[in-house]
Amino acid sequence: MSDLKVPEVPGFRWAGVRAGIKKREGLDLALLVADEPIPTAAVFTTNQVKAAPVLLAAERVKSGRAQAVLVNSGCANACTGAPGMEAAKVSTAAVAKALGVHPSLVLPASTGVIGQLLPADKIEIAAPSLVQALAAGSAELFSQAILTTDRGPKVAQRDLKIGGKPCRVLGIAKGAGMIHPNMATTLAVVATDAAVSAPLLKKFLKGAIAETFNAVSVDGDTSTNDTVVAMASGRSGAVKAGTKDAKSFAAALEAVLEELADMLVADGEGAEHVATFEVVGAVSEAAARKVAQTICTSPLVKTALHGKDPNWGRILAAAGRSGVTFNPNAVEIRVGDAVIVRKGLGVGTEAEKAAHAVMTLPSYTVRVKIGAGKGRARYKTCDFGTEYVRINADYRS
Amino acid sequence: MSDLKVPEVPGFRWAGVRAGIKKREGLDLALLVADEPIPTAAVFTTNQVKAAPVLLAAERVKSGRAQAVLVNSGCANACTGAPGMEAAKVSTAAVAKALGVHPSLVLPASTGVIGQLLPADKIEIAAPSLVQALAAGSAELFSQAILTTDRGPKVAQRDLKIGGKPCRVLGIAKGAGMIHPNMATTLAVVATDAAVSAPLLKKFLKGAIAETFNAVSVDGDTSTNDTVVAMASGRSGAVKAGTKDAKSFAAALEAVLEELADMLVADGEGAEHVATFEVVGAVSEAAARKVAQTICTSPLVKTALHGKDPNWGRILAAAGRSGVTFNPNAVEIRVGDAVIVRKGLGVGTEAEKAAHAVMTLPSYTVRVKIGAGKGRARYKTCDFGTEYVRINADYRS
Repeated sequence: MSDLKVPEVPGFRWAGVRAGIKKREGLDLALLVADEPIPTAAVFTTNQVKAAPVLLAAERVKSGRAQAVLVNSGCANACTGAPGMEAAKVSTAAVAKALGVHPSLVLPASTGVIGQLLPADKIEIAAPSLVQALAAGSAELFSQAILTTDRGPKVAQRDLKIGGKPCRVLGIAKGAGMIHPNMATTLAVVATDAAVSAPLLKKFLKGAIAETFNAVSVDGDTSTNDTVVAMASGRSGAVKAGTKDAKSFAAALEAVLEELADMLVADGEGAEHVATFEVVGAVSEAAARKVAQTICTSPLVKTALHGKDPNWGRILAAAGRSGVTFNPNAVEIRVGDAVIVRKGLGVGTEAEKAAHAVMTLPSYTVRVKIGAGKGRARYKTCDFGTEYVRINADYRS
Repeated sequence: MSDLKVPEVPGFRWAGVRAGIKKREGLDLALLVADEPIPTAAVFTTNQVKAAPVLLAAERVKSGRAQAVLVNSGCANACTGAPGMEAAKVSTAAVAKALGVHPSLVLPASTGVIGQLLPADKIEIAAPSLVQALAAGSAELFSQAILTTDRGPKVAQRDLKIGGKPCRVLGIAKGAGMIHPNMATTLAVVATDAAVSAPLLKKFLKGAIAETFNAVSVDGDTSTNDTVVAMASGRSGAVKAGTKDAKSFAAALEAVLEELADMLVADGEGAEHVATFEVVGAVSEAAARKVAQTICTSPLVKTALHGKDPNWGRILAAAGRSGVTFNPNAVEIRVGDAVIVRKGLGVGTEAEKAAHAVMTLPSYTVRVKIGAGKGRARYKTCDFGTEYVRINADYRS
């Protein structure tokens, strides 16, 4: 299996099959299995309306150990009440039985339309073949089976050395471009052969998520199903808190998640640009993040990005309603290298022409300086095109 | 002038002329003048980035008295720094001179593109003819001169009796449909012949705004120029705090502002529906308002409204990320008379068909019950069509 595009990670096996959950053709059931119960950490959506698989996985991962992650696409199993929870339990139990492990070691994750009940019977039928498929399976098949309307698989890896031994961090994600924010929305798994305790893994995961998955916006709508699971098989070196190896590992994890997050923003029909807004000079990082987030979720800013229009009035107006205090007369805005606002005032037509040229690129950075403080934050967003409206207005019809 | 569509209010004169500020043809300079300095109250944008006319008007109205409101369309005079403030002062001074009143009695308001300096010279030239036009002027000309890309004038009135005397509350507003949220955005004046003290007028105005102008959303973007001014000429009966007349007056004021707010939401190219979201059963009014506001600014909800799709998963997901605590399993959602969600679960296809039929109407109500509390709030929004994106992406080009 050396010609695989997606590399292996020691201690893990992967599979992706079709169970018939998706209406359209294609793989729709994915399984990641560790050789034994291993340290596992996860983060979930902050939305109060949580899908059944989120509730069940969150409960199960509390132990800090898991052996498998079962993902289905085509159905979110969200807002499905007690029957939804029962379906999540039945389907993970079927796979646990085929694997010969305790059901509590199998974490479920689902993605698809909200309000539709997971067809657990189809997963019960598919479970034995899913487990058989592990033998010849690959991370690539897994990466395909979790997709909904994504343009393609999203995989990122970093190789590093831990305690002198080669070590890998592999991340696989699905969704959510602008086209399927109702597809409940982002799922990602991270597999590493480093030996990391569950509490340390959770700490690293939470830190990395804040700077990556939680610093991108497609439309400001938080899904009912967002899930990121990280598992450490311990086949490579041990990562101890406070060491140089710990720093390297955390950096690799963050790099993997950042690459996946970038792919999420870029992958939306209608989305033609990824803009990174870097807010600097705030009194704190939190203040900078709030300003950046408000800019990145403003429909007016996002439509201006679509029109390649350096419409700085909209950026300034969004910053102004963010709730963060700053002096509008001290603001500087730079698109790429073109400074279009200085001391809160427009620089002029030539600068805006240069900025427009930058905005024709697929990705670029807009730097917004709001003062002399040390707080800074980055946030990524995509443009808001007519395709977004067309697809989301027609989505269920 | 008895055949005017827009009625007179004793104690006020109106005018609307062309000063050449707008690139396109049409009136662009409007003046409302009271016979003498009278009690005046105003509310302004909460955006930290405030246009020069907002800063100047806010300073001048602190006295609780004013005699005139000078409005220009075609230029917001926002983000224009010291020159912008100078332009606001020069233009109001020119009109004050032509009127023979002190400049501090003239409140400026501007609407148009952000980042463009007000051409004060054009207003200086037009000031004498603007004041002359008062003699033959009308509220109707005023209502036309403050428009930007509005479909048409927005006027609302209520007639009532105060102390047994006939009394009128007349409101005139401009913008902002979805097409011109950068046109800095909402301006309204309210003229009444009731005798109301400035503090009482301010109290009534603030109360009415919370339930009307502050309970509608086009795209969640707060403008740099939003301004509502109320003036009371005192030609009719006196309104004293705590009386039955005070109640009647407050109700009339709120009714006028609500009618204007409805016109704002309805008036957007591309906006085909006005949906009123009524959130009930919350622990407090504030909680209900927060849920309603989050639903009404969700791009996913708004695109679903455009598609006439009773996509309750999006409504529930938006409520879930609002920050308000509720039990998702107790939620009921009703579109018109069609209950589509009961106890957090979808009712079924027939109910959704009935809801779809309701959603083809130009305006309808969606009721979201989130619990058994007494808190309730209403919020209005419009649908998010491809026209919104087209117009806002192309706006400045």
